[in-house]
Amino acid sequence: MQSEHFLFGDQVEIEEVDKGITRQILGHNDELLLVKAIFEKGAEGYQHQHYHSQVSYVESGIFDVTIDGVTKRQSAGDSYFIPPNLMHGAICIEAGVLLDMFSPIREDFFENYKKGE
Amino acid sequence: MQSEHFLFGDQVEIEEVDKGITRQILGHNDELLLVKAIFEKGAEGYQHQHYHSQVSYVESGIFDVTIDGVTKRQSAGDSYFIPPNLMHGAICIEAGVLLDMFSPIREDFFENYKKGE
Repeated sequence: MQSEHFLFGDQVEIEEVDKGITRQILGHNDELLLVKAIFEKGAEGYQHQHYHSQVSYVESGIFDVTIDGVTKRQSAGDSYFIPPNLMHGAICIEAGVLLDMFSPIREDFFENYKKGE
Repeated sequence: MQSEHFLFGDQVEIEEVDKGITRQILGHNDELLLVKAIFEKGAEGYQHQHYHSQVSYVESGIFDVTIDGVTKRQSAGDSYFIPPNLMHGAICIEAGVLLDMFSPIREDFFENYKKGE
């Protein structure tokens, strides 16, 4: 399972995810995945957890990010790290973009995921 | 080995990497690493390879990216995926920022790296 080598932002499908949130699935193989998540003001990535390691980078906007019960406000150039299985979520204070990266790949983001294909 | 949960861009050390290139080491654990690489116009990330999977996202600027002998021009919102052990490099055409993510961690970016610490 892997993406093309080159991805161009204006050519990648934009998926509806949740109220006020869309995303693009960007480069990936079984070990690594980049997802661009676009938030409208007030949209919320609800608290959840997963076994994957995650790092997120605030490309634009303002977000209140909660990790393991601690909330901090982040804006462009800030980032956060979520160890496996730790509860986390984000509320969008000003419209913006989060770049979410995961290891391994989020199998649940792909229909009919098969490792190694 | 893991970073703080929250990283603020203006508080993270900026390291000199190469002529015209500086970087910030952002969120990471043994499985996943985010690095922000800041390029001056004309700076070059020379062709190299490594066993880590890599995805890079162009936050700003224009870059001529070469992967396995194929060169394409990318700008803000574009991205690329580099499978393990494939030769790659980038030349900065207009000053900008690449977000480079790796799995597993780039041990060679850390002095005295010890897995699991």
